[in-house]
Amino acid sequence: MRMYDLIMKKRNGGILKENEIYEMIQEYTKGNIPDYQMSAMMMAIYFNGMEEAETLALTMAMAESGDMLNLSKINGVKVDKHSTGGVGDKTSLALTPMVAALGVPVAKMSGRGLGHTGGTIDKLESFPGFSTEISTEHFIKQVNEKGIAIMGQTATLAPADKKLYALRDVTATVDQMSLIASSIMSKKLAAGADAIVLDVKTGSGAFMKEEKDAFSLANEMVRIGNGAGRRTIAVISDMDEPLGNAVGNALEVKEAIDTLKGNGPKDFTELCYTLGTYMLIAGNKAESEAEARQMLEDTVRSGKALDKLAEFIEAQGGNREDVYHPENLCKASIIEEVYADKEGYISKIACDEIGICSLILGGGRETKDSVIDLSVGLVLHAKKGDYVDKNTVLATIHGNSREKINLAKERLLKAYTITDSYNQTKEIIKGVIGI
Amino acid sequence: MRMYDLIMKKRNGGILKENEIYEMIQEYTKGNIPDYQMSAMMMAIYFNGMEEAETLALTMAMAESGDMLNLSKINGVKVDKHSTGGVGDKTSLALTPMVAALGVPVAKMSGRGLGHTGGTIDKLESFPGFSTEISTEHFIKQVNEKGIAIMGQTATLAPADKKLYALRDVTATVDQMSLIASSIMSKKLAAGADAIVLDVKTGSGAFMKEEKDAFSLANEMVRIGNGAGRRTIAVISDMDEPLGNAVGNALEVKEAIDTLKGNGPKDFTELCYTLGTYMLIAGNKAESEAEARQMLEDTVRSGKALDKLAEFIEAQGGNREDVYHPENLCKASIIEEVYADKEGYISKIACDEIGICSLILGGGRETKDSVIDLSVGLVLHAKKGDYVDKNTVLATIHGNSREKINLAKERLLKAYTITDSYNQTKEIIKGVIGI
Repeated sequence: MRMYDLIMKKRNGGILKENEIYEMIQEYTKGNIPDYQMSAMMMAIYFNGMEEAETLALTMAMAESGDMLNLSKINGVKVDKHSTGGVGDKTSLALTPMVAALGVPVAKMSGRGLGHTGGTIDKLESFPGFSTEISTEHFIKQVNEKGIAIMGQTATLAPADKKLYALRDVTATVDQMSLIASSIMSKKLAAGADAIVLDVKTGSGAFMKEEKDAFSLANEMVRIGNGAGRRTIAVISDMDEPLGNAVGNALEVKEAIDTLKGNGPKDFTELCYTLGTYMLIAGNKAESEAEARQMLEDTVRSGKALDKLAEFIEAQGGNREDVYHPENLCKASIIEEVYADKEGYISKIACDEIGICSLILGGGRETKDSVIDLSVGLVLHAKKGDYVDKNTVLATIHGNSREKINLAKERLLKAYTITDSYNQTKEIIKGVIGI
Repeated sequence: MRMYDLIMKKRNGGILKENEIYEMIQEYTKGNIPDYQMSAMMMAIYFNGMEEAETLALTMAMAESGDMLNLSKINGVKVDKHSTGGVGDKTSLALTPMVAALGVPVAKMSGRGLGHTGGTIDKLESFPGFSTEISTEHFIKQVNEKGIAIMGQTATLAPADKKLYALRDVTATVDQMSLIASSIMSKKLAAGADAIVLDVKTGSGAFMKEEKDAFSLANEMVRIGNGAGRRTIAVISDMDEPLGNAVGNALEVKEAIDTLKGNGPKDFTELCYTLGTYMLIAGNKAESEAEARQMLEDTVRSGKALDKLAEFIEAQGGNREDVYHPENLCKASIIEEVYADKEGYISKIACDEIGICSLILGGGRETKDSVIDLSVGLVLHAKKGDYVDKNTVLATIHGNSREKINLAKERLLKAYTITDSYNQTKEIIKGVIGI
C-alpha cells in the first residue's frame, strides 16, 4: 500500500477497501504516514465522502488502534451512553444512577471539559474526595458489586482517533459526517459496551445546528454501531437553549440531585427518562417504552436512584452524605440576580454565550492546563417562550470575583433575545433512530 | 491571517484575496505554515479551483518568493521559451540559435532531466567542456555580446514553487490546472524575460493527454503571463509519438545540428519554425507569421543559425568545431538495428515507453543523483502512419551494454502498435493561443 495511491483513489471518487483503511490507520498511528498526506486524505474525504463500509472500517481501525477495554467479566448487558455535547448537559449525573438502580450495569469512561462545554468528571469532582483515577480491575469489580463505576478515559483508548482529530482540527476537516461519526464511535467501541445509546444534540448550541444534520449523524452512528455488532439507539434532542437551568460544575450536580428527587427541570427530566428508556430496552431490562418509563419514574419516586448515586460517590472516594445534603458542596461567594432589561417573550437564548459566561466566571478551561472553579456558574430562571419584564430575574450568577461577574452579566443579557411575541413550540426530544 | 481560516474559506468555495495568497506563500516558504495545512489547502483547491485573479496572485507570490532575475541590462526584448516536456524534445537546442541569429536575445535558464524526460543542460553537456555553471554577470554579458546564453536554474529561483511542488507530488494534488499553470509560470516570471513562448504538449507522451486539457492549460498560462505584464503566446503541439527521431542526449544534439543544417525531421523542424515564428513576433523582430517564417528558413539556409550554435558552445567552454563535426561527439559502443516483428501500419508509439528505453540504456536519471550516459539512446526510423514489414528497421539502439540493449529492444518492440490499416491525419501543431 502506498498512501499516495490511496489519496489519489479517494480524490478520484474511489472506494477504499477495508484492508487499505486498516493499514492506513495503523501506519499513521505508528508515525509512518506523515500528517501532510493524511490531511490531504481528510480533505479528499471531506469532498467525496465515505460509503457505509468505509466508515465502519475506519471506525473499527481507530477503535483497535489502542487498547480495547474488555468488559466481559461484568455480568449483564453493558449499555454505554454518549452525548454529542452541549451547554448544561449534566445528563450522565442523573441518568446513570437511575438505570444502575434498575439493574443495567453502568461501566462508563468519561472525559474532562475543554472550552465552554463541561465534562462529567469535572462535575463529579464537586464531591470532595471523589476520584475517577481507578484501575481497570477496580472499575470492573465496582460495576459488578455496585452496578456503576465511572473512570477517566485512558490515553491508550483509540490513539488513532486522538491523533487524527487533532489534525482535522487544524486543517478544516472536522465537519464531515462520516468522520465525526467514526471519531465518536471508535471511542465508544473501544470502551467495550455491548450496547450504546446516543444523545445527538441539535440547535444553536449543538455542533449540528440543523435538525437534518443531527438526524444524518445519528443515522450514521447507528449504522456503525450495529455494523460493529453493538445494539445502538440514537435520541435526537434539543440544544437550542441550555439543557435544564444550571450551568457550572457544582450547580449542575445540585440540579442532577434535584432531578433524582423528582424535582428537576422539565426538559432535563424528560431527556433523562427518554435516554433511560432506551438504555433499559437495550439492556434487556424492559420490553416496551411504556414499561421502561414506568420503571424510571418508580425508581426516582422510591429514592432508589438517589441512593444509587450516594453508593456510587462513596465507592469512588466521596462522602455519601453530600448526595443527601448538596448544600454542603462548594458554593460561590457572590450570588447575584440578573433582571431582564426589557419586557416581552424570550425568543432565543444563545447557548454558546451562556457557556462562555460560565467560562468567564472560571467554570471552564481556556486551555487543557487551566484550573477550574467548581463553585461558579449560572442558574437560568427564564427560558425560551417565557414572558418577562424588568422585575423578572432571568438568571442567578454565582461567582467569586466582582469583575468576572460584571463581565458575565453583560454577556448574559446579550445572550437573551426578548421579542414582542413568541409562538414556536418547544420539544426536547426530536426523534429516535435505531429502535 | 490564520491558515485555518483560509483553508476553510477555500474548502467552502470562497475566493482568496491577493494579500491572503501572498501572506500564505511567504509564511509557507519561511516554514511558518506546516505542510499538513498546505496539503489540505491544495486538496481544497483541487476540488474548488481558483479564479483567474487567485491564480495570478499565487503565481506572482511564488515568483517573488526568491530572487527575481533582473535582465534589464540586456538590450532588446528578451523572449523565453518553455516546453511542458516530452520524449525527444530537443527544441531548445535548435530553436534558440535560430532566433538568436535573428537578433532575439536568448537569456535562458534550463534544468536537468529526471526520469525518462531529458533536460536541456544534460544534452548540451554532450559538448565536452561545455558548462552552464556561470555567474549572473557572465550570463548577462554573454547575452549582450553573443546574443545567447543558457544557465542552470538557481536554487533561489521561486523556492516557494519548489517546496509546494514537492508537497503536491506526494499528496496527489499535482494535476490541477491552475496549480500546474502557476508552478510553470512562477519560474518563468522569476527568470526575468519580457515575453514568453510556451510549447504545451498534448498526447499520450504529454502530461496533458487530452487536447482540450492542453488548450485549457495554455489559456491559463497565457492569462497569467499577460496578467503579469509579459507578452505570452502558447503553441499546442503533438506529443502522441516522440518528437523527431532521436531520443538520448548526444543523439538529440546531432539531430538538432542536422536541423540547423536544414536536414532535420519534418515534425521537429516544423515545431522549431512555429515556435521561432512567435518568438520573433514577441521579440518585435517580425511583423507577420509569414515574414518570421521566411527569416527562420533564411537563417538556417545561410548557415547563420549553425554558426550561432558554434559561437554559443564556444562561449560556454565547448569546442566550436564539434558543432561542425558532430561525429566527434561521444558515441555508444554497440549500435543495433531493430526490425519490425510484423507487417502493417504503425498506428501507435507509446512515447513514455520509448523514453524508458533510453532510461534503461543509461540515458536518463532514475534518481536525482544518478550519473547519466550521454552516448546512449535510440533513433527511430519509422513513425506513426508508416508502412513496415519484417525487413523494415523500426529503430536503431545505441548502447554500451549487451544486457541493457536486450531489455531496451524488447521494450521498444512492445512500444510500437502495428495494425492492418491507418487513416488518421498527423499534425504537429494543434493550435496557437495569445496571438
